[in-house]
Amino acid sequence: MTTALLTDHYELTMVRAALAAGTADRHSVFELFPRRLPEGRRYGVVAGVGRALEAIERFRFDAETIDFLRERGVADDATAEWLADYRFRGDVWGYPEGEVFFPGSPLVVVEGGFAEAVVLETVLLSIYNHDCAIASAASRMTAVAGERPCIEMGSRRTQERAAVAAARAAWVAGFTATSNLEAGRRWGIPTTGTAAHSFTLLHDSERDAFAAQLAALGEDTTLLVDTYDVEQAIRTGVELTSGRLGAVRLDSGDLPAVARDVRRLLDGLGATSTRIIVTSDLDEWNIAALAGAPVDGYGVGTALVTGSGHPTCGFVYKLVARGTSPDPEGPLTPVAKRSTDKISVGGRKFALRRLGEQGVAEAEVIGIGAPPVGDHDDRPLLVPLVRGGEVVGAEPLSAARERHLRSRAELPLDALRMSHGEPALETVWLGGTGEARRNPFG
Amino acid sequence: MTTALLTDHYELTMVRAALAAGTADRHSVFELFPRRLPEGRRYGVVAGVGRALEAIERFRFDAETIDFLRERGVADDATAEWLADYRFRGDVWGYPEGEVFFPGSPLVVVEGGFAEAVVLETVLLSIYNHDCAIASAASRMTAVAGERPCIEMGSRRTQERAAVAAARAAWVAGFTATSNLEAGRRWGIPTTGTAAHSFTLLHDSERDAFAAQLAALGEDTTLLVDTYDVEQAIRTGVELTSGRLGAVRLDSGDLPAVARDVRRLLDGLGATSTRIIVTSDLDEWNIAALAGAPVDGYGVGTALVTGSGHPTCGFVYKLVARGTSPDPEGPLTPVAKRSTDKISVGGRKFALRRLGEQGVAEAEVIGIGAPPVGDHDDRPLLVPLVRGGEVVGAEPLSAARERHLRSRAELPLDALRMSHGEPALETVWLGGTGEARRNPFG
Repeated sequence: MTTALLTDHYELTMVRAALAAGTADRHSVFELFPRRLPEGRRYGVVAGVGRALEAIERFRFDAETIDFLRERGVADDATAEWLADYRFRGDVWGYPEGEVFFPGSPLVVVEGGFAEAVVLETVLLSIYNHDCAIASAASRMTAVAGERPCIEMGSRRTQERAAVAAARAAWVAGFTATSNLEAGRRWGIPTTGTAAHSFTLLHDSERDAFAAQLAALGEDTTLLVDTYDVEQAIRTGVELTSGRLGAVRLDSGDLPAVARDVRRLLDGLGATSTRIIVTSDLDEWNIAALAGAPVDGYGVGTALVTGSGHPTCGFVYKLVARGTSPDPEGPLTPVAKRSTDKISVGGRKFALRRLGEQGVAEAEVIGIGAPPVGDHDDRPLLVPLVRGGEVVGAEPLSAARERHLRSRAELPLDALRMSHGEPALETVWLGGTGEARRNPFG
Repeated sequence: MTTALLTDHYELTMVRAALAAGTADRHSVFELFPRRLPEGRRYGVVAGVGRALEAIERFRFDAETIDFLRERGVADDATAEWLADYRFRGDVWGYPEGEVFFPGSPLVVVEGGFAEAVVLETVLLSIYNHDCAIASAASRMTAVAGERPCIEMGSRRTQERAAVAAARAAWVAGFTATSNLEAGRRWGIPTTGTAAHSFTLLHDSERDAFAAQLAALGEDTTLLVDTYDVEQAIRTGVELTSGRLGAVRLDSGDLPAVARDVRRLLDGLGATSTRIIVTSDLDEWNIAALAGAPVDGYGVGTALVTGSGHPTCGFVYKLVARGTSPDPEGPLTPVAKRSTDKISVGGRKFALRRLGEQGVAEAEVIGIGAPPVGDHDDRPLLVPLVRGGEVVGAEPLSAARERHLRSRAELPLDALRMSHGEPALETVWLGGTGEARRNPFG
C-alpha cells in the first residue's frame, strides 16, 4: 500500500510552487530532531527506523492517488508528472534504532532535492513522533522491572494500527512479548495471552472455565483469578493442576498486598513454581512500587501505548541547509528560521556519543562541519540508512533491541531514576572547528 | 486488508478453549462502555462508528492469517476450521456517530455467540477508544471557537494511520478541514495547506518565496509570515497581491498580541479582507484566550491528536449476559465480575437521552430490561448497526457531523465550559420496571 497520502496537503503545494519557480531540485538538507525531552524525562529512545525505511520505499504516487490530487486541485499537470515519476533518490542518515537520544540529537538527516525531501516530512514525523514516544516510555518500564518480564497489552487503548507500531516499539525497548497478533505476524514478536473475565463468566462455574482453559492450553497456562474470589480461584486452579499451574493473573485490587497473599497461598498449597502476573493500569511508578512484591511479570497497557503522559515527542523536520542547484557537491547555505520560541540551527550536523572511563556516556556532542578528532572516545551516532534512494540500513528488529539495552547500559546511573529530572547527558554544541558553544535549545 | 489480527492473542485462545468445551456458541451480550469520563470532562463524543462497521465486515481469517496462527500454536485444527468460516453473524446496536455520551453509556451492544462476539473486542475497543478521545477533545475546541473555523493539522504528531482516523474524528466534531490527504481521499474531508518555513528558506529571499507561492496557488493563498520579520513579510505579501492576499499564517509568538498588530498593519495597508490564521500549539484553552483577538481561523495539531490530555477513553468491552445455548431467544443470565474497583453491571442495557422543556437534555437514562414508557421526552440512543451480520447502520460522515452539532446544542450551557467539572448530565440508572437506583460507577 502506498504511503504517499500519509502526508500533509502543504507538502504537495510546496512541490507545485517550487516546480513552477524552478527551485524544486535545489540540493537540500533536512533534519528531524527534538528541541527538548518531555518535561522531567532523562533520555529518549529511537524507534521506528525500520518502519520509516519501509515508508520511504513505499512512498510512490500511483494513478489513483494522482487522480485524487488532480481532482482536488492539489496537483497541476507539471506536479502530476513529477509525482508519477517520484521515488526518493537521495541519502538518509540517522541514529540507529534502539539508540538513546537527547535534546537536539539529529535523529534523521535527509539529503536530496528540496521537493523529493520535503514530501517525506509528514510521514517521517508521524512514525518517529509516535514510535519514539512509546519506546521512551517502555524503556523506563523495562529498566525498573529489571529481570522481570514486561508484556505489552495496550492494543485496545490506542488506534488499531498504532497498536501494532506500539507493540514493535515496546519490543525494541525491552518488552518480552505483546498481546498484539499483527505485531507477531508482521514483526515476529512473541505474542501471548490466555483469557479474559468474560471467559469465566461464560461458563456455569469458575471451575468449569478453568477446566476448559487447562484442557485447551495445558497446565502451564495463566489463569485469571479475580473474577469472583481470588483465594477460591487459586485453590481451584491449583487443585485442577495438582499444583503444576503455570501462572495466575491479578487484574485488580491493591497489587503489592494481594501479590503477597497470593504467593503465601500458592506456596502453602505446594504450587511453589506457579508464577504471579499482574496487569492492572501499570506504569513505571507502579512497577517500581511492586519491586519488593513477589511478582513474576508485568502486563502493561494504557500507560505504555499513550507514552506514559507523553504520547508524542514533538520532533520537528527542518530545512537546515540548501544549495542553489541540484548539485550535491555545490556550496550549501545554512538556513534557519529567525524565532525566539522555535529555534533551529542552520547547517548539517554531526552527532557523537562521548564515552568516558569504564565506557560511561558523558555527553551528546553535536555540531556543524567536521567532527572533532582527538583523544576522546566518541561513537558516531549517524549511520547510513538510504544511499541514492536504496535502503542500506535495514536490520533485524532484534538488533535494535540489543542495541537499546547496550546504549541504555552506558548511561550514567541517574538516567534510570524514575523521578523527574534533567536529561542524563548534556548536549555539547560544537562549531566546525571543535569549539564548544551555547546550547541553542537551552 | 483483513482486520482479524488487530486483535489480542487471548481472544483466540478463548475461542479455542470455548470450542473444545462446547461453550463457544452460547448466546452472549457484550457491551462497550466508559465507567467514567476523563477527569474534569463534561461530556464525550461518539466517533469511529463507521470505521468500526468496516472493521467488522473485514474481520475475516484468510489462509495466510490462519497459517500464521497455526504456526504460532495459537490455533489448533478445530479453531482453524472455525476461523476459516468466520464472519460475524450476530447483531450490533450502538450510539450513532456524533452523539454525546456520559459515564456508563452503553455505546455498543454486541449480541451473538460468545466466540463470534468476543473476537471483536480488541479492534472495537481500539477504534472507539481512539476516535472518541479525539472527537471529545475536538468538540471542546470547535465549541469554544464558535463561528471561526478549526483546521486539523496534527498528522505529524501521531502514528501515520492514527492520523487519518484523527482527522476523521475531528471532522465529526466540527472541524472544517484537515491537512491529511489520506483523510481527504478516504473520507472526502476537505483538505488544506499552503507552505512551511522550509519553503521560504529554500528561496533566495522571502519575496522570491512568496512570489513563487502566489504564482502557483493564486492570490487567495495563505502566506506564512513569521520566518524572518512578520511586519516585513506582511508588507511584501500585500504588495505582491495589491492588497488582495487571502490570508496570513502566524505560527509563533504571543498570538493575541501579534494578531492585533497584524490586523492593524493589514488594515493600514488596505488589506482589510486578508484573514489571519494562527497555528502554534493551540488547544481549547488557547483558542478561548484568542476569542477577543482578531483571528479568523485556528490550525490545531498536537493537542487535538493526543486528545488534549486524554489520549484514550478507557472504554471496556464486557460480557453482561449469556445463555446456555446458541438460541437468541433462550433465557439470558446477567453476569458481572465481582470487583470493588472495576465495576460492570450485568444485563443488557437500554439507553435514553431525557429531554426537558425547550429540548434541553436533562439526563442519561440507562437501565436493564424494558425502557420506561410515559410522559418523558426520551430519545432512544441505541440504533441498529448490524443485523444478522449485515451492516445496516452505515451513513455518510456528514450525517454524523450534523448529529454532533445537534446533540451538543441540546446540552445544558454548562457542558461547554472549558473549566474542569462534573459530567453535564447525570446518569440515571433504572431497573427493569423503571425505578431509579444508585449509580454503580459513582
